[in-house]
Amino acid sequence: MKFDISHKDSTTKARAGTLHTDHGTIQTPIFMPVGTAGTVKAVHQRELKEDIKAQIILGNTYHLYLRPGLDILEKAGGLHRFNGWDKPILTDSGGYQVYSLAKTGRKISEEGVKFKSHIDGSTHFFTPEGVIDIQRRIGADIIMAFDECTPYPCDFSYARTSMDMTHRWLKRCCNRFDSTESGYGYSQTFFPIVQGSVYKDLRKQSAEFIAGMEREGNAIGGLSVGEPPEDMYEMTELVCNILPADKPRYLMGVGTPENILESIALGIDMFDCVMPTRNARHGILYTTEGVINIKNEKWKDDFSAIDEGLGGYVSTFYSKSYLRHLVKSEELLGAQIASVHNLSFYLWLVSQARAQIIAGSFYDWKVEILKKISQRL
Amino acid sequence: MKFDISHKDSTTKARAGTLHTDHGTIQTPIFMPVGTAGTVKAVHQRELKEDIKAQIILGNTYHLYLRPGLDILEKAGGLHRFNGWDKPILTDSGGYQVYSLAKTGRKISEEGVKFKSHIDGSTHFFTPEGVIDIQRRIGADIIMAFDECTPYPCDFSYARTSMDMTHRWLKRCCNRFDSTESGYGYSQTFFPIVQGSVYKDLRKQSAEFIAGMEREGNAIGGLSVGEPPEDMYEMTELVCNILPADKPRYLMGVGTPENILESIALGIDMFDCVMPTRNARHGILYTTEGVINIKNEKWKDDFSAIDEGLGGYVSTFYSKSYLRHLVKSEELLGAQIASVHNLSFYLWLVSQARAQIIAGSFYDWKVEILKKISQRL
Ligand SMILES: [Zn+2]
Ligand SMILES: [Zn+2]
Repeated sequence: MKFDISHKDSTTKARAGTLHTDHGTIQTPIFMPVGTAGTVKAVHQRELKEDIKAQIILGNTYHLYLRPGLDILEKAGGLHRFNGWDKPILTDSGGYQVYSLAKTGRKISEEGVKFKSHIDGSTHFFTPEGVIDIQRRIGADIIMAFDECTPYPCDFSYARTSMDMTHRWLKRCCNRFDSTESGYGYSQTFFPIVQGSVYKDLRKQSAEFIAGMEREGNAIGGLSVGEPPEDMYEMTELVCNILPADKPRYLMGVGTPENILESIALGIDMFDCVMPTRNARHGILYTTEGVINIKNEKWKDDFSAIDEGLGGYVSTFYSKSYLRHLVKSEELLGAQIASVHNLSFYLWLVSQARAQIIAGSFYDWKVEILKKISQRL
Repeated sequence: MKFDISHKDSTTKARAGTLHTDHGTIQTPIFMPVGTAGTVKAVHQRELKEDIKAQIILGNTYHLYLRPGLDILEKAGGLHRFNGWDKPILTDSGGYQVYSLAKTGRKISEEGVKFKSHIDGSTHFFTPEGVIDIQRRIGADIIMAFDECTPYPCDFSYARTSMDMTHRWLKRCCNRFDSTESGYGYSQTFFPIVQGSVYKDLRKQSAEFIAGMEREGNAIGGLSVGEPPEDMYEMTELVCNILPADKPRYLMGVGTPENILESIALGIDMFDCVMPTRNARHGILYTTEGVINIKNEKWKDDFSAIDEGLGGYVSTFYSKSYLRHLVKSEELLGAQIASVHNLSFYLWLVSQARAQIIAGSFYDWKVEILKKISQRL
């Protein structure tokens, strides 16, 4: 993997770059749609590419490991072959899901985590080494470290103990990654993850530790878990100032359009979040004019396009009134339209941010656009 | 509306025709995807047109009347404007839904049917005149008579009494239709419906009554409700021999691929059925090689396309293994893929039937293709 930074904003820490992978290039800053079980919910692969213009998607290790399982993914020739998405894929390490989905019967030890499947209750054991092997077999272009994502709030002592274990696990991940190879003929890379909850000295310590691993990219985890946005920005800024400037920085699980633009200003290059698709299924739409709750009465006879300003088939062909009808009636097409629309908006937003960074007008644009897109319509 | 029959099969009663409407022409025999609430479930309008190649879709009067309601449809400029489908639409009369969905508190009288909404329990009253007005306001190209669809089995006495009332209601429908006008600037036509359960003398009597109304097309209702296929074919044949040969014949709610080809052979021109979309959502796929239950273990590592022989994006891009994973995981994309596939298959089937009628080879082709597509894979 190779990362070129072509432009740096003079007012903020924002940068525009290009990430080169064997499955094609990614223009940063970038938002990565979440494809939990090998599918971005309610979205065809063709729509992902042609309408949404996604450049890289996420897969969830925990979900894919349980279903369809590694045997099938391997027989298929990896996840790209299995689901037909031929651009880059990043897989999370399963850590977050193990803590949030498989709470019952979960047991953490130095060796790893024992947990029960949320599908059939069967028992499984994830270790740092095992999770690297799993992501190798899934065939991710970018493989993530196995970490413990601390909840919020989290007391200092727990956060420090957890961070120390995450760092020991990281060494084991690196050793395993460096002593194994890609099985599918394209190269895979590995990103470590900064933890440390909302404690500045822990974040500093963790960022230095992670920077010291000298990998091709670095991630920030354990944020956007319920803490106030000021804390998230403060931690992100602190960590960005320590992580190497010439490597991509990925802020995991973030966030709202505002969170994304503010974090780009702090030097973040990559984002993922279930928010655009999950909110879509509940009728919350992000548009170039502001946020819409399509279930509200006021849209019932509004026959204007969902978002004329955004453009694209889904956002200009269907009306607000029709989408409201579909969502109220719990019709599948409602989730489909809203999901394609929201993801199109997120990809539009980061592509605009990139264009503004290149044009040297990112800061002023950010102030203006946030006024517009943050308002509730 | 104008109907031209260009070819008649010499071995069977099959015919190939063209139905002209103000929203474009329909090549018959045709299958009409069901768009209950103004949406063909899980299918984008673009997919309906470009992938499935649908020429006309159905809307359900009962559902559309309750939600979004006539005020909104009228403000939108009719259903075509509301949902963006600019080709022909046929609406059922709501009779079937009133009997099947709104069973609780339903009361039939000579005047009409009082029923409770399955959505909010509110009380409504449908009369033959009211149902014509509703379909006028929905903006259907083809408006159906308000009838009672008898269940199966149904004793002779009930079937006769019901048929007689359906005939009296038909006169009221015709009077209302003839004394009202289209509100949207394009013409609307009206189809009466033959009833009579599985009783030959009732079917004969009803077909003669319906033929005597001299409308632009005629429908056969009350079949495919649980009776043996032999009974369905016998009734269809009997009725087709009475209904005028130069007008389109619509067999309501039918059916399997085999039902459709056999009924085309008896002189039917138009079909609708929820089977392709409902079965799709349960993982039953119709393919050019036979019927597939995609949930079966045998497909778990079958990475071949869903249906290479059928062609088209959805059927050739996604593999059986991937679709199985999606359906087993209850992912929305599974329903989307299977629905587009099954509808594509149904439209392919009737277009093939048409081509074979024109080529004079319909009968032999039907025997061969049924052997292939009826087998369970
Ligand atoms: Zn998130
Ligand atoms: Zn049916």
